[in-house]
Amino acid sequence: MKDENLLFRPAVRVDLEGIVGMLADDNLGRTRENPELPLERSYEEAFQAIHEDPNNELIVAEADGQLAGVLQLTFLPSITYRGSWRAMIEGVRTASSMRGRGIGRELILHSIRLAEEKGCRLIQLTTDKSRPDAIRFYESLGFSPTHEGMKMRLDKGDGKE
Amino acid sequence: MKDENLLFRPAVRVDLEGIVGMLADDNLGRTRENPELPLERSYEEAFQAIHEDPNNELIVAEADGQLAGVLQLTFLPSITYRGSWRAMIEGVRTASSMRGRGIGRELILHSIRLAEEKGCRLIQLTTDKSRPDAIRFYESLGFSPTHEGMKMRLDKGDGKE
Repeated sequence: MKDENLLFRPAVRVDLEGIVGMLADDNLGRTRENPELPLERSYEEAFQAIHEDPNNELIVAEADGQLAGVLQLTFLPSITYRGSWRAMIEGVRTASSMRGRGIGRELILHSIRLAEEKGCRLIQLTTDKSRPDAIRFYESLGFSPTHEGMKMRLDKGDGKE
Repeated sequence: MKDENLLFRPAVRVDLEGIVGMLADDNLGRTRENPELPLERSYEEAFQAIHEDPNNELIVAEADGQLAGVLQLTFLPSITYRGSWRAMIEGVRTASSMRGRGIGRELILHSIRLAEEKGCRLIQLTTDKSRPDAIRFYESLGFSPTHEGMKMRLDKGDGKE
């Protein structure tokens, strides 16, 4: 897809309501997020922590001037692989009104380019096993499901990941 | 296990040769790492990058005054889960001469405590599907294999992860 009206940029503070809205508009996300305004203070603190961290970037896709997608890209210094940098993708979401335009695909490809520019030797992500479409999507982009993604909740929350 | 002679501490520069030696002393690690001295400069650069990053910590286990294990703990600010911090574990290795003493288990439990102190709501890791013992080990500590861990190499290396 070549979409002339699609651009990618670092998120700014005024995007935050829209980002949380996208994260909440999803089967798993609706149990985890609270898009009510004003946003919980923890969302603003997280935005600020990401903004101040040179190894974390919140990236948004904008299509036709509208917020169309989001993901978080983290650069990880690592002793393994002969002291290489890794990139990690988390929190990928496309606006439901924009699905089917290939925006998610372009957003991931954009992140892969950023990881290559940073000199990362590996890019990784985890995706819930209850999302088979997402697994196929990432496989079509060149990712391999070589690892078990293991998680443990440390709080007493009811949400599930 | 209660091992009076076991302690955990942040790695210091003089541990680096021993850390790379442990990482290389493994079926997968031996294809990826180069423990020859002097170490490749990239290992020292990675050590320095981790050392300077307040959200990354290289932790070693010391048993009877000897280097006994290593892992990297990363704290990740995140918009998801209502703006929560996550912890991630990478590069876990126990010295082959020290296996069977429960050192790996204590090292992971130590990291879980650090993640809780930081206020993380989730701790996560990925483990190669070719290591069924590791998967059972993490399950016994409370991790669930809910996710696919998907990776893509960005270099032209021959090593495999």
